[in-house]
Amino acid sequence: MDAAQEAQNREAFRHAVVNTLERRLFYIPSFKIYRGVAGLYDYGPPGCAVKSNVLAFWRQHFVLEENMLEVDCPCVTPEVVLKASGHVDKFTDLMVKDEKTGTCYRADHLLKDYCNDKLEKDPNLSAEKAAELRHVLAVLDDLSAEELGAKIKGYGITAPDTKNSLSDPYPFNLMFQTSIGPSGLSPGYMRPETAQGIFVNFKDLYYYNGNKLPFAAAQIGQAFRNEISPRQGLLRVREFTLAEIEHFVDPDDKSHPKFSEVATLEFLMFPREDQVSGRAARRIPIGEAVSEGIVNNETLGYFIGRVYLFLTQLGIDKDRLRFRQHLANEMAHYAADCWDAEIECSYGWIECVGIADRSAYDLRAHTDKSGVPLVAHEKFPEPREVEKLVITPVKKELGLAFKGSQKMVIEALEAMGEKEAMELKATLEAKGEAEFHVCTLDKVVTIKNNMVSISKEKKKEHQRVFTPSVIEPSFGIGRIIYCLYEHSFYTRASRDGDEQLNVFGFPPLVAPIKCTVFPLVQNQQYEEVAKSIARSLTAVGITYKIDITGTSIGKRYARTDELGVPLAITVDSTSSVTIRERDSKQQIRVNVDEVASVVKEFTDGVSTWGDVLWRYPTHSS
Amino acid sequence: MDAAQEAQNREAFRHAVVNTLERRLFYIPSFKIYRGVAGLYDYGPPGCAVKSNVLAFWRQHFVLEENMLEVDCPCVTPEVVLKASGHVDKFTDLMVKDEKTGTCYRADHLLKDYCNDKLEKDPNLSAEKAAELRHVLAVLDDLSAEELGAKIKGYGITAPDTKNSLSDPYPFNLMFQTSIGPSGLSPGYMRPETAQGIFVNFKDLYYYNGNKLPFAAAQIGQAFRNEISPRQGLLRVREFTLAEIEHFVDPDDKSHPKFSEVATLEFLMFPREDQVSGRAARRIPIGEAVSEGIVNNETLGYFIGRVYLFLTQLGIDKDRLRFRQHLANEMAHYAADCWDAEIECSYGWIECVGIADRSAYDLRAHTDKSGVPLVAHEKFPEPREVEKLVITPVKKELGLAFKGSQKMVIEALEAMGEKEAMELKATLEAKGEAEFHVCTLDKVVTIKNNMVSISKEKKKEHQRVFTPSVIEPSFGIGRIIYCLYEHSFYTRASRDGDEQLNVFGFPPLVAPIKCTVFPLVQNQQYEEVAKSIARSLTAVGITYKIDITGTSIGKRYARTDELGVPLAITVDSTSSVTIRERDSKQQIRVNVDEVASVVKEFTDGVSTWGDVLWRYPTHSS
Repeated sequence: MDAAQEAQNREAFRHAVVNTLERRLFYIPSFKIYRGVAGLYDYGPPGCAVKSNVLAFWRQHFVLEENMLEVDCPCVTPEVVLKASGHVDKFTDLMVKDEKTGTCYRADHLLKDYCNDKLEKDPNLSAEKAAELRHVLAVLDDLSAEELGAKIKGYGITAPDTKNSLSDPYPFNLMFQTSIGPSGLSPGYMRPETAQGIFVNFKDLYYYNGNKLPFAAAQIGQAFRNEISPRQGLLRVREFTLAEIEHFVDPDDKSHPKFSEVATLEFLMFPREDQVSGRAARRIPIGEAVSEGIVNNETLGYFIGRVYLFLTQLGIDKDRLRFRQHLANEMAHYAADCWDAEIECSYGWIECVGIADRSAYDLRAHTDKSGVPLVAHEKFPEPREVEKLVITPVKKELGLAFKGSQKMVIEALEAMGEKEAMELKATLEAKGEAEFHVCTLDKVVTIKNNMVSISKEKKKEHQRVFTPSVIEPSFGIGRIIYCLYEHSFYTRASRDGDEQLNVFGFPPLVAPIKCTVFPLVQNQQYEEVAKSIARSLTAVGITYKIDITGTSIGKRYARTDELGVPLAITVDSTSSVTIRERDSKQQIRVNVDEVASVVKEFTDGVSTWGDVLWRYPTHSS
Repeated sequence: MDAAQEAQNREAFRHAVVNTLERRLFYIPSFKIYRGVAGLYDYGPPGCAVKSNVLAFWRQHFVLEENMLEVDCPCVTPEVVLKASGHVDKFTDLMVKDEKTGTCYRADHLLKDYCNDKLEKDPNLSAEKAAELRHVLAVLDDLSAEELGAKIKGYGITAPDTKNSLSDPYPFNLMFQTSIGPSGLSPGYMRPETAQGIFVNFKDLYYYNGNKLPFAAAQIGQAFRNEISPRQGLLRVREFTLAEIEHFVDPDDKSHPKFSEVATLEFLMFPREDQVSGRAARRIPIGEAVSEGIVNNETLGYFIGRVYLFLTQLGIDKDRLRFRQHLANEMAHYAADCWDAEIECSYGWIECVGIADRSAYDLRAHTDKSGVPLVAHEKFPEPREVEKLVITPVKKELGLAFKGSQKMVIEALEAMGEKEAMELKATLEAKGEAEFHVCTLDKVVTIKNNMVSISKEKKKEHQRVFTPSVIEPSFGIGRIIYCLYEHSFYTRASRDGDEQLNVFGFPPLVAPIKCTVFPLVQNQQYEEVAKSIARSLTAVGITYKIDITGTSIGKRYARTDELGVPLAITVDSTSSVTIRERDSKQQIRVNVDEVASVVKEFTDGVSTWGDVLWRYPTHSS
């Protein structure tokens, strides 16, 4: 099969999945009656149930299993927090505008489309030109605004809809901005991630945990990203649910006590070196990946293993799941290591979970901005003698010189690192004064010799004070669910063979509804039995759907298979009923008063269908 | 006890509760290290767990029990939707500004504070003046901007902080505004309620339900309200979780098949007439309230009963819970009836759930704005003959006359009611033309005789088409949780009697952590047992907390009581342990391998403590 054929098959498959999803209300374009808003989707009833199930399993698998501290913070966030985190300055995409109509486009998308289009469709393309375009695609994410602009101009790229010329690229901040309170003076944003709510609470959470490391905090909640032009349906949206974990750990000891429980797991990994040298992803036991230094540390490796278990237990195909390490140019300068769980779907390999060792970056950023030390303490069994930098600002002199700005100057002096402080000391001793940059004032001031004393003193220390590192697994719940839909979807011929029927083969854990109840024919007796079964299902917390339409059983099975319901109960007598399993289509006879417990043990995962099949007589229709 | 003493006691009680809640991280002022933002709070670990439990129970009690269609819509909402719902124009509070500093205040708050202050503290107040102030307080919510302004001027009320004079009151819209996409041309808001997401999806949801009424849709999610000056701690916040139900029903038949299940429930009700005539709330069986017409209909009555069960099963004290009917002036003009579940706490009676019959208002509003008919159909067994209004716009003539506006004119003509249409017909016949207001164009156009034909025709109808009524129970989850905290809190003397200890007496259903595990002394054997118990608890989905500090058992009990943990497991041997119940402080001996199942049956509500106590030997410490 050639590439074009493969692409066409992928499109057709996606079309079938998306069509079923929309028709059965797994999702709905939001505000559809008003022609919708790009990048906003509702979860309809079955989609909402799948999402609840995924989140409940996430809580069980991560929060409960690891005794994490779950918190719940607001979406509305004041500017100062996102200034500290870097989002106000750096959370941007490069945008170009149609110079006549003002329509906005993502600059990199236009360039990417141009290159792909040329490569696919231009028969006269020279080998040299093709190589150039492929190079552009490879370095696309690294291009500066100027470089992007030059390429767009150079290739003569115009606005796709109008062919008008385009503006130079400029950064557009992707946060939804708003204003907190009535004054208009307190800018705020809808959070672009949930993590910051945890970081700013570090001090309280550390205390809650008995001032002990390591510990993890977790949060599930909405996050927002005002995309320039959303594409790829459910994969790139403007509002989405994130589930994030911030695991705080001593930077000097990133071992994990439960690492041995995952060490032998083996799955597709795609280390940086393999990507650079053009090799394919390969199966590596995670224990080996850590011991050979491919993965930076045990805690990071432990979470990679746990994420693998989480995704495959949900129903993600392990052969279409890989862990890809970030290349040096993708990773933030502060990150120690970063791996993405990527799932292959009809759109290609999609990043669904990021697992990063962000070192001390976030806690330091908020410590600096807020002045509240977000640090941990390790008590020594015996006091230790250490050489310590001591910076003593002379408040009286600083007050005279800087008046209202005194506090900022003092804070900046006290915040100096050892190198900077010793240089300042040397300059002050040599020249009697020195230039000094105060970042909170954003200016350079002159410090005189009598304004600060700097020295190194031997001290007895009873504890070590340090900023913890944070390991952050961050889950895009909507993306995971979309990939799950694709991995669960299949079609099979109807009984008479003249129709292809759709099935979502969800594991019971994920299935939006656990069983359907069908009275075989429309009569009062059977409907009474159906209702009493329904009551017993509700009592044990099982979701069900009754279908009392007179439609044929075959049609009703087809409908329920399309919703991914694992079991269908047909009421065909008043004492016992038929239970049919979705994927095997096998049927068993079960007494009415045992139905709820059979359904529950199967959908709770206590028994497999095989276990159940063995205990009850089979039924042939 | 006089009123002042009572007020003081209430304050002291609230102080004790809030102090415990903050110290144990049930909640945290958001962004505390940056000095916080008024009206934004985080749920810390125990608060977040309580919230999860309340929401899980809500899902079981409402969504699962009634087979509701749960959906999940975005918070970001385009302007058109909230224009249709009326929020853009009417979701406002009246605000005044300090004329010098620009500080904003809610106008009614200032007037209310002034009146209360005078009434409480001015010994020279004449009886006449006191009566006037009391009258102002009674009608406060009905005052227009002009009336409020006149009172503020008349009483000489100034800005509380500066004593500067105040501006005239003007409306401030309480929605957080933002902009969708990069163009700046698509205004949007953070939703002030979750209901609109359901209304705009009515057509799809009705189809999903097999085109049958009644059915209910439900949604849990964040809502936002940019309060002018938040007060009352956790009760009036800028972002909160709502759980809303929209039950769609035929306006001609608001009976409910399960009403008999709640009819005999008897609880405090406060009908409109009793409020107006100064009587107190009284216990009325809900069946009687419906049959006597105090409550408008069975479906409304059914939900009032279900809300009563929900709140009391959560742990709300039934003697501090009442259902208060809205007075005529509180109710929207379209509402058929409306009751608030009010819970009494230290702030007074607080509205926590609103249960309203909103008639067809919302679906009609979105039908009008979107042009998509949000209606239901009832097929007649036999076709019926009816006289029908037929409006036939003549597209050719209208096109010539109105060009681009043709579509809006046609829609407006077709949307005419019978009365309006017959008047237009009469005018056209008399004068050959008529003035006609097109609301979507916001102007009056001239319609000529040849542009539209209007007639009444006899027709056979096969079905009735109508806009369903909606009954809306809407739950403020944060308010319910805060009231629950107050109702669950008590203090008791420590064993040696020299200290008052705090206890949250949460039902197991609500408790943030179901049990704690304490090794009696710090030794490896006991810690191993504690860990194996912990593993067995995780396996059955029970949340726990291990406390291996060397602190005395009494202190550890006190800590865990303060978190509202129902059971404490003390490991004092390797074969059996002591389980202590929080409120009775009774203790039993249980074998290590039975611990998880005992804890589970008690916290799942399968057994009471009495049941468990009877089966195991008691332990006296």
